[in-house]
Amino acid sequence: MANPLTPEVLADPVELTRVLVDVESVSREERVIADHVEEVLRAAPHLKVARLGNTLMARTDLGRPQRVVLAGHLDTVPIAGNLPARFDGDLMYGCGTSDMKSGVALALQLAVEVTEPRYDVTYLFYEAEEIESVYNGLFLVSQTNPEWLEADFAILLEPTYGVVEAGCQGTMRVMVTTTGRRAHSARSWRGVNAIHAAGEVLRRLSGYEARRVEIDGCEYREGLNAVRINGGHAGNVIPDRCAIEVNYRFAPDRSAEEAEAHLREVFEGYDVLVTDVAPGALPGLTAAPAQEFLAAVGQTPVGKLGWTDVSRFAALGIPALNFGPGDPNVAHAVDEHVEVPKIRAGAETLRRWLSVTGG
Amino acid sequence: MANPLTPEVLADPVELTRVLVDVESVSREERVIADHVEEVLRAAPHLKVARLGNTLMARTDLGRPQRVVLAGHLDTVPIAGNLPARFDGDLMYGCGTSDMKSGVALALQLAVEVTEPRYDVTYLFYEAEEIESVYNGLFLVSQTNPEWLEADFAILLEPTYGVVEAGCQGTMRVMVTTTGRRAHSARSWRGVNAIHAAGEVLRRLSGYEARRVEIDGCEYREGLNAVRINGGHAGNVIPDRCAIEVNYRFAPDRSAEEAEAHLREVFEGYDVLVTDVAPGALPGLTAAPAQEFLAAVGQTPVGKLGWTDVSRFAALGIPALNFGPGDPNVAHAVDEHVEVPKIRAGAETLRRWLSVTGG
Repeated sequence: MANPLTPEVLADPVELTRVLVDVESVSREERVIADHVEEVLRAAPHLKVARLGNTLMARTDLGRPQRVVLAGHLDTVPIAGNLPARFDGDLMYGCGTSDMKSGVALALQLAVEVTEPRYDVTYLFYEAEEIESVYNGLFLVSQTNPEWLEADFAILLEPTYGVVEAGCQGTMRVMVTTTGRRAHSARSWRGVNAIHAAGEVLRRLSGYEARRVEIDGCEYREGLNAVRINGGHAGNVIPDRCAIEVNYRFAPDRSAEEAEAHLREVFEGYDVLVTDVAPGALPGLTAAPAQEFLAAVGQTPVGKLGWTDVSRFAALGIPALNFGPGDPNVAHAVDEHVEVPKIRAGAETLRRWLSVTGG
Repeated sequence: MANPLTPEVLADPVELTRVLVDVESVSREERVIADHVEEVLRAAPHLKVARLGNTLMARTDLGRPQRVVLAGHLDTVPIAGNLPARFDGDLMYGCGTSDMKSGVALALQLAVEVTEPRYDVTYLFYEAEEIESVYNGLFLVSQTNPEWLEADFAILLEPTYGVVEAGCQGTMRVMVTTTGRRAHSARSWRGVNAIHAAGEVLRRLSGYEARRVEIDGCEYREGLNAVRINGGHAGNVIPDRCAIEVNYRFAPDRSAEEAEAHLREVFEGYDVLVTDVAPGALPGLTAAPAQEFLAAVGQTPVGKLGWTDVSRFAALGIPALNFGPGDPNVAHAVDEHVEVPKIRAGAETLRRWLSVTGG
């Protein structure tokens, strides 16, 4: 199959987005799109290219004092009858338009066209972001080729609607369990009702005052919530167990260990089991490339509330933020779309930032 | 297959129990045992016999001023490697020994041997008590042949360990539902957490003071308990619904309507849906045959806390009580058993009561 990523397509970020969208690349089926992108990257003499599975790394090596990463995932959630891409006025509809082939298009265009960037740049186009971490291309690179990720600053082109979303909050799930003693419900006083005991856990959650933390001018707003509850055996049995799954979204000034300690304090007296944790990422906006990027955008950053792959960079000590043209509110939706002017504005912002030769 | 219910077997209530236990009769597989019992009943010239499905009715028609019912179900819960019956000292082990072939044995022996009872007697041996009501032989009779149940007093030979358990409590299940508004748990303040809202429902349950009611000298102790709770959609979603299934066991001085009104009061402000109800039964111990039965037993009756088929008689205005040799604490257990002396004592008590010719 001829590579649809022709020079004419690469010259226009909107057309490039459309063509990338029309190459289906549901998670774990990214081979074709990765082949096309690899071919384009290898044709650029200023880039050194390497591949791991369906993840591509391309880098300049100009001896600049600083290096930045631009990263985007190639995969999408499953198609929902929303391909090929179609236009409706200023909107381009289709699976992956927002999350995040419009972002990938911006990075790919810069990779090919900006031969003399202000910093050395590492471009990462990776696989399997939309599924379990174990398949995530960025995770796999961090395990096998961590040197690919080394940089002073990283931008993930996740959909943010053109807003700079810095760092990200951590997320922790714990199972809080209450216990009791089973009995027939006709003689309930012989038992101890574990569901009734859960009332106190829910009372603590209702009364919990979540923190709002400001870091580098970005506000992070925490949340502590029961997301699932389950207890009971049968309609005539006093239950001896009730499990409340609690999700804690915590500001990045707290480590995973501190978050756990906090939850153990909140639920003192109950059995608390951590079932899932992903640490947050500090915004790290004080690094020079970050400051210069913010100047190019000309906009106040906000704290990222959801968890994203920026925390993989944070774990390596690399400040990272999210910035992309897509609208996060329609990501994964059947009517997923991106606004064409947002693609053009993003392309200009990034090019301005990368092209300016520092003072 | 030859009928194992020979005259020698019928002459001894313990041997009769053993033989009945060894005829497997899990719910909906009662045909063979019903055939054997029918043959025995039809051979007794003083009985008029009728059959509905695998339920048998046999009655005397001696023109006595009063009629009593003796009833027992032929089915058992599924066998759990606990057949055939075996003896260990004074204990007979096996599926159905307690619940309730020892009780069936007492009634069947009386049916065959007491040709001149003090009252006219209707014996009922019925199917499918251990499963959903719609299959219950007593329920089916009440729908198609209610005249079979007409009597002044009824005894169910359910396991009571030789204690007279009068009437029974009612049981009602309601679903109490809380609602909220879904949101991503990273932006929890945009949602309303329905599981947190359930805390107040559990608080009311924890603080509930259950009534203890005395009727005809029997104490009925109520209970109001959450038996199941379920809420939540995913680990990252603020839940918009939580359902708490509540079981109310209520004393028989309350009707089903009064019980429902009470629960609507307790859970005021919440959505309450009645999912299941079975009214209780007043002990009705003032009827003459009941008084004479208590005199024969020579023991103080207690209130029945669990729901049993006695309330089917109560619904027809017939006072009813539970009295059987089995131990209710081992009913349905793998180590189900009955004490041999309890069988003999029960047989003697019932025979004494039925055989004495009134004043």
